[in-house]
Amino acid sequence: MTTLRNDLLLRTLRGEQTERTPVWMMRQAGRYLPDYMKLKEKYSFFERCQKPELAAEITIQPVEQVGVDAAIIFSDILVVPQAMGMEVQMVEGKGPLLPDPIKHIRDLDKLRIPDVHETLGYVFDALSLTKKTLDGRVPLIGFAGAPWTLLCYMVQGKGSKTFDEAKAFCYTQPETAHKLLQMITDTTIAYLKGQAAAGADVVQIFDSWGGLLGPEDFEVLSLQYIRQIVAALKDEVLTIIFAKGAWSSLDSMAATGAHGLGIDWCIRPGMARQLAGSDVTLQGNFDPAKLLSPIPVLKKEVRTMLDAFKGGRHIANLGHGILPNVPVDHARAFVETVKEYK
Amino acid sequence: MTTLRNDLLLRTLRGEQTERTPVWMMRQAGRYLPDYMKLKEKYSFFERCQKPELAAEITIQPVEQVGVDAAIIFSDILVVPQAMGMEVQMVEGKGPLLPDPIKHIRDLDKLRIPDVHETLGYVFDALSLTKKTLDGRVPLIGFAGAPWTLLCYMVQGKGSKTFDEAKAFCYTQPETAHKLLQMITDTTIAYLKGQAAAGADVVQIFDSWGGLLGPEDFEVLSLQYIRQIVAALKDEVLTIIFAKGAWSSLDSMAATGAHGLGIDWCIRPGMARQLAGSDVTLQGNFDPAKLLSPIPVLKKEVRTMLDAFKGGRHIANLGHGILPNVPVDHARAFVETVKEYK
Repeated sequence: MTTLRNDLLLRTLRGEQTERTPVWMMRQAGRYLPDYMKLKEKYSFFERCQKPELAAEITIQPVEQVGVDAAIIFSDILVVPQAMGMEVQMVEGKGPLLPDPIKHIRDLDKLRIPDVHETLGYVFDALSLTKKTLDGRVPLIGFAGAPWTLLCYMVQGKGSKTFDEAKAFCYTQPETAHKLLQMITDTTIAYLKGQAAAGADVVQIFDSWGGLLGPEDFEVLSLQYIRQIVAALKDEVLTIIFAKGAWSSLDSMAATGAHGLGIDWCIRPGMARQLAGSDVTLQGNFDPAKLLSPIPVLKKEVRTMLDAFKGGRHIANLGHGILPNVPVDHARAFVETVKEYK
Repeated sequence: MTTLRNDLLLRTLRGEQTERTPVWMMRQAGRYLPDYMKLKEKYSFFERCQKPELAAEITIQPVEQVGVDAAIIFSDILVVPQAMGMEVQMVEGKGPLLPDPIKHIRDLDKLRIPDVHETLGYVFDALSLTKKTLDGRVPLIGFAGAPWTLLCYMVQGKGSKTFDEAKAFCYTQPETAHKLLQMITDTTIAYLKGQAAAGADVVQIFDSWGGLLGPEDFEVLSLQYIRQIVAALKDEVLTIIFAKGAWSSLDSMAATGAHGLGIDWCIRPGMARQLAGSDVTLQGNFDPAKLLSPIPVLKKEVRTMLDAFKGGRHIANLGHGILPNVPVDHARAFVETVKEYK
């Protein structure tokens, strides 16, 4: 295996001292990059995910063009419901659509816990190819959606501000909901193990809709499944949990043994550290909209954020995905400010 | 003046001991009520707001049909931008549209700080008529949007998950943004004073998008203006601030001297009390989606919430507006469970 020349991210996740804070950006391989947009015009969303050469090219773009300290594989959390047997469409300008959502226990018959090598082998191929092409420049991050977030889409059938149908499903048919969550969990464990075997140095679990749940529901509907995933993986690969908005469960997320926890900009770094304790790396938490500020303002705000995290284990990142309307030089200014910070 | 026969809400806001917890629901006058839907079919949104008889009828429906301890005037936060000179359309199924949003300092020339009696007199008329028709049954709540939330719509021109254009406007043109926020603040103070004079016993300031801001931005872009409003009003009328998701500023919101603070279901009541201190009434925080649970589950969850607030000043409410797909008997079960609770 090629030796990593930049392993800042991995050492920070392991709790080792590093010469500076590592930096990457959620959705860094994406729509704010003109070179990505060119590929988007030529290939459909699933072509971009499923052709390893395209996925690898897109994954490496921000490493070369923005200078981030890690690559995150270009893919989507909804490849898992797809592999489990659901139809998933990506409707331009509208987001995902699952035309045949889960509504009753009988709908589970349409689902399977798939052989991930058969159904998601293309992700593993993309990871292997990316790893080879990166040639030790930076670590490679794999990812999956948290079971709760995937249930949201599988039941609601599309994006939502409240995911009230998904919640109502859990409240009115709890046994079916838990059966579904366990099926997703089992699939995700196999999927993330496959990603680690294919070359992912770190895996991040995205619970995009964890913050829609109160703390008790978050434990029952989300965290108990994330806990299984982390337990199954943490001796094989470094793990990060990002449950946007679920700040009030930072303590129990830290107790899973995950190496890193993502936080958004609505919580002060000091408060997050207090809740999470000192034995976990915090990742975040720049407001993505602040990348639209004039560069001098942006740089000052990044330094303020770094000051607030100082002294603890920290990976600089945004508090949510980068917005499509961010100019590339602003993204670069974010990364450079972190790299220059003393 | 008619004596109030049920003043539980007012006494709780003043910090007095009451025989039980008062209860109302945000958006209680609205789409889950079949009688409201009948009026919605016959009259446009602005007709329903602007005709005092209609607004009063809609406002009183949940008092009679669901048994809440307060009426909240049927209106919309966007009547203020409208009174300031902006066109506001309500597009069925899509939400508000402001076709000519604020983008530059010169756009402020199109706005005015209006004479609220001239432009918003219909709201005052609706309040007076409602007050008279209520005849002392329950207190009457007036409301307005927080300046930051109104800026979001006035700049972005429509709803948004991130309001990134509104934020970018504030980051790139801070002077213009503050000029606009001050214009909205001045209008809102006059508007809420008018509401109090017309019969509102309480006014609530809705900062629906306060939770999109990090704590420092919340202070600069939102709270400093809310503080002006509360200071101008709190000796004339009881005040409640509801800044959804802005939990990390509960301490500074409490310091404004507002009588009540709304909280959502993502914060534990104990934590909210710890942050807000003991000298303010907390209002909330039932997850609106939980009203879709089977009634026995719902009732149990309501009691769990009430247990968690026990011993402190509390108004039972949802953590956000009631969802349109909630059956009326579930809404009634929510209210009844609070009333029966010992």
